[in-house]
Amino acid sequence: MSATPGELLARVVAGDRRALGRAMSLAEEGSPAGREVLRALYPRTGAAHRVGVTGFPGAGKSSLVDWLATGYREEGSRVGVVAVDPSSAFSGGAILGDRIRMMRHTTDPGVFIRSLATRGQFGGLSKATHDVADLLDACGYERLLIETVGVGQDEIDIVRTADTVLVVLVPGMGDDIQAIKAGVLEIADVFVINKADREGAERLERELLAMLSLAPARGGDGTPAIVRTVATRGDGIQDLMVAIAEHRRRAQASGQFRERRTAQGESRFLALLRDRLVAETLQRLEAAGTFAGILAAIAERRLDPYAAVEQAAALLQGSRS
Amino acid sequence: MSATPGELLARVVAGDRRALGRAMSLAEEGSPAGREVLRALYPRTGAAHRVGVTGFPGAGKSSLVDWLATGYREEGSRVGVVAVDPSSAFSGGAILGDRIRMMRHTTDPGVFIRSLATRGQFGGLSKATHDVADLLDACGYERLLIETVGVGQDEIDIVRTADTVLVVLVPGMGDDIQAIKAGVLEIADVFVINKADREGAERLERELLAMLSLAPARGGDGTPAIVRTVATRGDGIQDLMVAIAEHRRRAQASGQFRERRTAQGESRFLALLRDRLVAETLQRLEAAGTFAGILAAIAERRLDPYAAVEQAAALLQGSRS
Repeated sequence: MSATPGELLARVVAGDRRALGRAMSLAEEGSPAGREVLRALYPRTGAAHRVGVTGFPGAGKSSLVDWLATGYREEGSRVGVVAVDPSSAFSGGAILGDRIRMMRHTTDPGVFIRSLATRGQFGGLSKATHDVADLLDACGYERLLIETVGVGQDEIDIVRTADTVLVVLVPGMGDDIQAIKAGVLEIADVFVINKADREGAERLERELLAMLSLAPARGGDGTPAIVRTVATRGDGIQDLMVAIAEHRRRAQASGQFRERRTAQGESRFLALLRDRLVAETLQRLEAAGTFAGILAAIAERRLDPYAAVEQAAALLQGSRS
Repeated sequence: MSATPGELLARVVAGDRRALGRAMSLAEEGSPAGREVLRALYPRTGAAHRVGVTGFPGAGKSSLVDWLATGYREEGSRVGVVAVDPSSAFSGGAILGDRIRMMRHTTDPGVFIRSLATRGQFGGLSKATHDVADLLDACGYERLLIETVGVGQDEIDIVRTADTVLVVLVPGMGDDIQAIKAGVLEIADVFVINKADREGAERLERELLAMLSLAPARGGDGTPAIVRTVATRGDGIQDLMVAIAEHRRRAQASGQFRERRTAQGESRFLALLRDRLVAETLQRLEAAGTFAGILAAIAERRLDPYAAVEQAAALLQGSRS
């Protein structure tokens, strides 16, 4: 496939799934052709509802996403799934085997599933996620389910700018509940108590309610809803779809939806700007033959990192003027 | 306390613990005074052995660190503990209550414990961790235990540049073992099977050995050791201390230790450089009155983020020459 960006774009717009996948790969690789397609499609984005799904590994997020995809398909919506897995960048994708669960959707042209594991040196995963979501959005996938494998900082940063954020918990997580509360309390728009047929679902819901009553009042979109599900058999999925729709309605009415969209744009702009500035600077330092010397001096404690940055900045300033 | 940086430095060097804590706070805040102290102390750093400790919440890392601190104190070493908790940046420090377990060390002047939760917009936690570790190193704390609460990407990035990395696992984690393997396999120098009196310790060790036999051969410091502990009662701590010392010895002999130190320096330099470049750029954009306009245009899909970065770069180029 050596289509020009223009040809690729035309095929993507025409609904060619292979072309869409190819555009995603190019965007992930950060190739100029991928960028060109993204830029051309950007004005067509914005219609999709982006739903982030996060929670500890083993909470059943993949099954939930699977059922939500089914539910939205039954409503007639087209569904894009973006599975974000930073950990598999180390192992080459072990966890993505999970995706096999989504197999029943693979023959449905109304569902597009993409797993992302590539992680560049500077937050490349967040960039790739937004790019892939934009491509899906521009191609008319109206429901985007952005699922993370865990609740690492990277993953929280990725989902927190979604339009609606689901945090999936399970009963009986014991001491871990403290960690979960601490890390994701503020980003949840809807709490999902999955595996709600297990002992402790009642208690978990009480704990969540107690916690929410203590939390500072949220403006705009109100207190997060709590929904119980048993994703393995599809229980509670309708309730969850209602809660998601309800969150969007409230957020749109209050203006919070728009604020979140602006924050999405800001974080993308800053990430791209940062990548560009750092890449440009390193290129200049390497061209000037100073990069290796700086690193050696820091390691040998002859130069402190703060002074090194001053030196590098001065060099760049000099080479520009 | 409104000491000048010079006075503060003198007090830190004289072994004043309150001054050391103050210098850490200043460094965390990114204040110029903190930077001045850090820069002056940088040539004194490098002697400490930096041991990173990571693993899922609930694996017993805090207890292990507690016992290691005790063990090193018995050997006559001074011990610094840096507890890194990105999640508590949301909740204001819920998990740091954990630190109460370390209470028995609080009256020991040979132990210094610092919890870090502050997280700036651009990887501030990594910067703060390195700064605090440097301050401890320069003040003669010979064993630095850098503990993360979870295994998020941020936390992995922080510990992976330590001289020796411990990955703490517990038997019976079920499906989660896949996630753990995938995320942290490559960064472990020593695997700790904690709570080894539980059922499944044998099986976990076999799984680890099988996994290690499949992993690509590691140069320099050899295959990671596996040590069993029961941290709640201090079992296996001596073995763990031996494994840690042995890793350092092998890494030093092979040159891998030095390589890791260079990587430490590189990641710090790049992080600081990135912060500086982005801060400078945003300042310029805000001064030019264009930042808010760019964000609004992106949110309204009138401008794509890639084009926005080009515009910003052009503006900066123009304003410099």
